[in-house]
Amino acid sequence: MVTRLSQLFVRTLREDPAEAEVASHKLLVRAGYIRRQAAGIFAWLPLGLRVKARIEQIIREEMTAAGAQEVHFPALMPREPYQATGRWDEYGEQLFRLQDRKGGDYLLAPTHEEAFTLLVKDLYSSYKDLPLTIYQIQDKYRDEARPRAGLLRGREFTMKDAYSFDHTDAGLERSYMAQRDAYERIFQRLGLEYAIVQADAGAMGGSRSEEFLHPTPVGEDTFVRSDGGYAANVEAFTTLVPEALPIEGLPEPVVFDSPGTTTIQTLVDHSNAVLDREVTAADTLKNVVLRLTHLDGTRELVVVGIPGDRDIDDKRVEVAFAPAEVEAANEEDFAANPLLVRGYIGPWSETGPILGEDSATGIRYFLDPRVVDGTSWITGANALDKHVHGLVAGRDFTADGFVEAATVRAGDPAPDGSGPVSLARGMELGHVFQLGRKYAEALGLKVLDENGKLVTVTMGSYGIGVTRILATIAELSNDDKGLIWPEAVAPFDVHVVATGKGQEAFELAEKLVADLEGARLDVLYDDRAKVSPGVKFGDAELIGVPKLVVVGRSAADGLVELWDRRSGEREVVPVAEAVARLSA
Amino acid sequence: MVTRLSQLFVRTLREDPAEAEVASHKLLVRAGYIRRQAAGIFAWLPLGLRVKARIEQIIREEMTAAGAQEVHFPALMPREPYQATGRWDEYGEQLFRLQDRKGGDYLLAPTHEEAFTLLVKDLYSSYKDLPLTIYQIQDKYRDEARPRAGLLRGREFTMKDAYSFDHTDAGLERSYMAQRDAYERIFQRLGLEYAIVQADAGAMGGSRSEEFLHPTPVGEDTFVRSDGGYAANVEAFTTLVPEALPIEGLPEPVVFDSPGTTTIQTLVDHSNAVLDREVTAADTLKNVVLRLTHLDGTRELVVVGIPGDRDIDDKRVEVAFAPAEVEAANEEDFAANPLLVRGYIGPWSETGPILGEDSATGIRYFLDPRVVDGTSWITGANALDKHVHGLVAGRDFTADGFVEAATVRAGDPAPDGSGPVSLARGMELGHVFQLGRKYAEALGLKVLDENGKLVTVTMGSYGIGVTRILATIAELSNDDKGLIWPEAVAPFDVHVVATGKGQEAFELAEKLVADLEGARLDVLYDDRAKVSPGVKFGDAELIGVPKLVVVGRSAADGLVELWDRRSGEREVVPVAEAVARLSA
Repeated sequence: MVTRLSQLFVRTLREDPAEAEVASHKLLVRAGYIRRQAAGIFAWLPLGLRVKARIEQIIREEMTAAGAQEVHFPALMPREPYQATGRWDEYGEQLFRLQDRKGGDYLLAPTHEEAFTLLVKDLYSSYKDLPLTIYQIQDKYRDEARPRAGLLRGREFTMKDAYSFDHTDAGLERSYMAQRDAYERIFQRLGLEYAIVQADAGAMGGSRSEEFLHPTPVGEDTFVRSDGGYAANVEAFTTLVPEALPIEGLPEPVVFDSPGTTTIQTLVDHSNAVLDREVTAADTLKNVVLRLTHLDGTRELVVVGIPGDRDIDDKRVEVAFAPAEVEAANEEDFAANPLLVRGYIGPWSETGPILGEDSATGIRYFLDPRVVDGTSWITGANALDKHVHGLVAGRDFTADGFVEAATVRAGDPAPDGSGPVSLARGMELGHVFQLGRKYAEALGLKVLDENGKLVTVTMGSYGIGVTRILATIAELSNDDKGLIWPEAVAPFDVHVVATGKGQEAFELAEKLVADLEGARLDVLYDDRAKVSPGVKFGDAELIGVPKLVVVGRSAADGLVELWDRRSGEREVVPVAEAVARLSA
Repeated sequence: MVTRLSQLFVRTLREDPAEAEVASHKLLVRAGYIRRQAAGIFAWLPLGLRVKARIEQIIREEMTAAGAQEVHFPALMPREPYQATGRWDEYGEQLFRLQDRKGGDYLLAPTHEEAFTLLVKDLYSSYKDLPLTIYQIQDKYRDEARPRAGLLRGREFTMKDAYSFDHTDAGLERSYMAQRDAYERIFQRLGLEYAIVQADAGAMGGSRSEEFLHPTPVGEDTFVRSDGGYAANVEAFTTLVPEALPIEGLPEPVVFDSPGTTTIQTLVDHSNAVLDREVTAADTLKNVVLRLTHLDGTRELVVVGIPGDRDIDDKRVEVAFAPAEVEAANEEDFAANPLLVRGYIGPWSETGPILGEDSATGIRYFLDPRVVDGTSWITGANALDKHVHGLVAGRDFTADGFVEAATVRAGDPAPDGSGPVSLARGMELGHVFQLGRKYAEALGLKVLDENGKLVTVTMGSYGIGVTRILATIAELSNDDKGLIWPEAVAPFDVHVVATGKGQEAFELAEKLVADLEGARLDVLYDDRAKVSPGVKFGDAELIGVPKLVVVGRSAADGLVELWDRRSGEREVVPVAEAVARLSA
């Protein structure tokens, strides 16, 4: 196919759109791939649709190769299945909800676990029907609080979501690996480097969960990895718990005056001045008051104790307490709990325990896993201007539970013993996930097994954001002049630019594009008369087809210029050679 | 590609689904093509998705051949553009409306005229950019009051909607014809017989408008056609207006007693008894009181006078008064207008005019176009138990306007003089439509013309319901055993059924499907062990791939059976001949 630029529905822009912050958003709008319709909602122009179709085609081919079958669900779904699993409420404001003319509740589906589960329940009833993996490529909706970064975090987005169904855990593992392998092939074909990192599985109720991340300094996700092969995103990182220490023989806690030392730094300075040993932030126990909002709307204050040389990590603490929502406690919370002495909060006081379910406040107390029994801490004595040192975990205070809420640092030991981790940033490309039996349980999906016994099906969920992948590639494949698509997803195979005032260049270009079309290439032909070479080259660089041919001055000699958009190299060759090399 | 039925995600049903009324709905569910999610909302199983993809592919090819370019809009659209054209309100309860978390108003688009208009305004500014035709294949939403007939009238449906943009009327005519020609090719390739009929253009504000209808007794639309080539749907049919007659010398109106004659039939009987001439219903003027609800919510009573041998046609009267809504007047309306004497209503009374803007009631009076000046009528005298005869149009009463509200009958003359029309039923396949400048005007889409003058763009709109076409084909292509797809859209090219207890048939079938795959055919292979031939044949007939091969008893001799699903013919041939004939 030859598409003539004079006919193509496109307009390139010189200026970045005002609302765009990231490179992919700026360039996809400027080069005429997408146009904004509302916050986080875009229309697709012919160029954009071509790239999207190529990505979808690669995904479809690999899904088919992995034995997955395509189905399609509507975006508009009734409330009932989502009510049955609790997600109608859990999604909170992220969900677009609406009513039909009869007052029935509907939603725009952000994901379709329930629908797939019910469909399989409707069709299948025996282990003989399994394993089954079905998928769709479909437009989804999520009412983001702050849609941003163009397609990277939109309110409408295209996803490939696949779901596997097995009647045994071993079967799930096989189905999971088949999708995981397919993902590797997809990202390899898309030319996207990736790391597979452990992800948190908690909130979705499943077990094994891995993300495919593209390592890049501009990534919005942080992950850790060790030289020994461990990799996890920060939410999934777990602390290598030290051995407990002997408590016997440890000195008793001693309260000391510490006026005006309401921060870790002032506490360390003051301790070094008044105690007869060297104190660092790691010797102190920081107690952070948080407010949880549970699913049923009830609120609860909790306190988390972490070593003073670390902070609370917002994402980790969110996962740790999910599905409850986590916020910092506010003035009102402190006013309602006068037993908590701000700046001097600790689990212990001279009059007895202050934190913990059986304490004076009744406030639940959670500890970082590093605070093992037998460790001794400097922390607040829960009295104005007073701290305590020699406070021993397991003797003077205990926790209601342990949480992975503290920041992860380079050098922290990987939990599998594979050595210290380093931190890196990445962009999420995909997610594979063993859901287990949560949805099948909630919606009653059972099959008869080999022994004629009803067993609950176990499921996997596998997602790739198609539009997100497109934006990720754009984000990674550009220079200051515009986009530079990998060949596998470029909107055209070749972009031919005819320049010059005479007819010769245009005549040769016509012959060239006909030959390229004959070689089954998709060709964009800039046939515009009365447009300067500078504008044509600028548009070509912005649009970003990686292989270009310029037909200009040397056309009379039957010569054209091969132009590699990525390297910038140009090479003059006879037109026949250009055809041969481009169609090789 | 070979798809094994043992692996295919499908389950066939013996019973019709309870909610299904029409053949396409019953069979598409029973054969495992679609599954209901909510009223008028369906999920697509692999079989259904394959047929849908084939239809879409044909449409895409013909759109490309016609020079149309593909774009894609979101289903979720902001209110503003629809507000600007008035359609946010005009759509009434048909529109799914919702709010985002910030309270912004959105809708699920039932059609995208506004969005396309604004996109072109955003990109283009000169006549040199035109003509342009862009289209999308996209999921649309309409909150039907009574979703029914499966995919034929769903609340979610897939449409191909194209829009053309020109700066001259001649350009619009060319763009319109290009789409119209493409539609003819599409329906020819789909094997769908069609009639192109004039359609009403009024409500959408445009000019030329034609529908593609498939003539079939089960169609839900009625249309008329003459042997001379005229074709129109009933809403668009216009009356061939007779010449006015001389008024001079006609006898004066005479009031006569007519107790208890409140229907046309009793009036005709009574008139024949008391008047000295033969009277038929066609001599009487029937006056029907209607209540209009205008867009701004105001209500108005109007009276429509039609010859007594016809009735008001609901669809025609709706179009005639659009965008106002039309209902029959109710008790309350009559109570509020005591000057209207029920059963005896007429435009005239012995005390003066009763109907018309300057009359005693002030109620506007509309006439059927056949009631030309000089025609003489028997009608109500607007007094209890009294009618009048010899009431002459243009002398004794006049109308505020003429409306096409009366039923159309076989034998009525076509408006173009091409002879009497007959009535037929059809299913709508597509619609081509000259929108004109309505949307460009409302949304300010102008371009500079050849003289540097800003001119408003003129548009066309062209729609095909993809899912509706699929259902239409299913509705037309079936027998009592199941579906029978035309080859162009069948989910597979060939369906191979292996039967028998030995391995021979399965071994030969494996070889056959490999050969068919080598010939680039899409093959469905029923490889199921332990399933009886009867069940396999039944499933094959239900699924409806038109070309089948049965590999069974004669497999040992290298023979297979070619089975034509449509004719039912079976023919035993050597396996090599089967491959040759199927891949021809």
